[in-house]
Amino acid sequence: MSSDLINIAKLSDGGSSEPQIQHRLDVLNKWNIPLGSKILEIGCRQGDFTLVAAYMVGDQGHVTGIDPAPLDYGAPMTLGETQDKLKQNPIGDRMTFHQSTLEEFLNSSVSEQVYDYTVFVHSVWYLPSADALLPMLAALRGRTKHLLISEYSLDVRGDIAVLPHLLAAISQAEFNSRDNALDRDDNVQSIISPQMICAVAQKAGWELQKEDTVESPEGQEDARWEVHRVLSEEYGLRSGSSGDASRQGFASALIHAVAESKRALGPSPKLRTLPTWLGSWV
Amino acid sequence: MSSDLINIAKLSDGGSSEPQIQHRLDVLNKWNIPLGSKILEIGCRQGDFTLVAAYMVGDQGHVTGIDPAPLDYGAPMTLGETQDKLKQNPIGDRMTFHQSTLEEFLNSSVSEQVYDYTVFVHSVWYLPSADALLPMLAALRGRTKHLLISEYSLDVRGDIAVLPHLLAAISQAEFNSRDNALDRDDNVQSIISPQMICAVAQKAGWELQKEDTVESPEGQEDARWEVHRVLSEEYGLRSGSSGDASRQGFASALIHAVAESKRALGPSPKLRTLPTWLGSWV
Repeated sequence: MSSDLINIAKLSDGGSSEPQIQHRLDVLNKWNIPLGSKILEIGCRQGDFTLVAAYMVGDQGHVTGIDPAPLDYGAPMTLGETQDKLKQNPIGDRMTFHQSTLEEFLNSSVSEQVYDYTVFVHSVWYLPSADALLPMLAALRGRTKHLLISEYSLDVRGDIAVLPHLLAAISQAEFNSRDNALDRDDNVQSIISPQMICAVAQKAGWELQKEDTVESPEGQEDARWEVHRVLSEEYGLRSGSSGDASRQGFASALIHAVAESKRALGPSPKLRTLPTWLGSWV
Repeated sequence: MSSDLINIAKLSDGGSSEPQIQHRLDVLNKWNIPLGSKILEIGCRQGDFTLVAAYMVGDQGHVTGIDPAPLDYGAPMTLGETQDKLKQNPIGDRMTFHQSTLEEFLNSSVSEQVYDYTVFVHSVWYLPSADALLPMLAALRGRTKHLLISEYSLDVRGDIAVLPHLLAAISQAEFNSRDNALDRDDNVQSIISPQMICAVAQKAGWELQKEDTVESPEGQEDARWEVHRVLSEEYGLRSGSSGDASRQGFASALIHAVAESKRALGPSPKLRTLPTWLGSWV
């Protein structure tokens, strides 16, 4: 275990598991963000990445996390409580949180004129579609020197243990692509491929500098969370609550495919989280 | 190569490839249909299975293939031409073809009162949804001693080379589950899991006797055909021709997932066809 991981785990104080911290360290290490950087993070949620980034930029750096989600979202601790707790740790002054959309935030007096880096870390699949990303990336032109996006890849890279996570993501995206069927409790609102992200960034005027991939560390829980959600009884019921017979049949078959892909891994399957794709633009 | 395969390939005279014949032999061998049986085949298409079954039931047996598709469907040879050609081979008199729905056929004077076996061989996914199977299976009560269904399983059984076929089937089913978007040229109109087939059969009064699975033989072309279709330019354009941004984004991501899963297998990937699930009822 690296000393960075040990130190951040202490600062997190149970907020993030070690694999979650390791994954965010892996992403940051690929991005090579220098000490002292000012980072804007879009869709920071509970601040999992915010903390890791705040640690890595050192005491001259700063991370501003924004998220439009209500501060009472989440259990057992709410978003607001988790963010407050992070602010109280020894590097808490390197982090600021704002409940805000990107547009509101950039137009507010609390935003810097220009950030060194703006990052989306697993927040793109929470958008309703790639179209929603376009005005955000366009608004960031001139307001950040670098744009960095990390999101799951749709490529299991030959690892069959990743398949249940891929199919669970497809299942959640199916439901949320129905008319008026958005369920904000799904971590996957839409599956947006790296190719689609690159197309939107280009349309918004960004120039792609680099693409990369990081494998998920052993034990990263996302696969287990999403598969568990899709295989729950409530999820099956919800799936049958809208759409016609053809759509509902499609949704049921996807759920069965998730179940089969998990069953095929044996009695106590080690589900593996999808690899993460990284893009950097200027 | 078995002597059955060699003999049937001769009779087929280029109509079916060896892997296609082998697959149908594998299915028939699991079903253990005795010599002299009278078989009704629902959705016989070009007669690929009809020929293999006609060979296996011997000169006292007979296979009646029905399909509602227009006889001028298909290229380079049409359905009608292919069926006519089969009728001209030495065991042609063991086969009869009718352009008909099941309901029309059972109510017609040409139908037997009771068949020994009624089979669906890869014709269930061509239905718009599992709901369409229910009246068919209900109508078959009392008109056949045995009901046999074979259809692709949604379980890749640990073989990553099967993933492109699974994802291509999901992609075609996505398109055909849209309102008014049916494209009869897709071999997959809907993905219907074994679980869903069993539920419908039970509802129609059938008692499940046995389930089984056969792996696809090396070289079975279905995976390659379906993946090729999904990755064609026209398919991508069609996908964007209906549905809102969210639905179209979902469809695009599925196409990208098919492309990635193929790319991950290397420069000249050997795509493997999904395993086939078999069910027998009385």
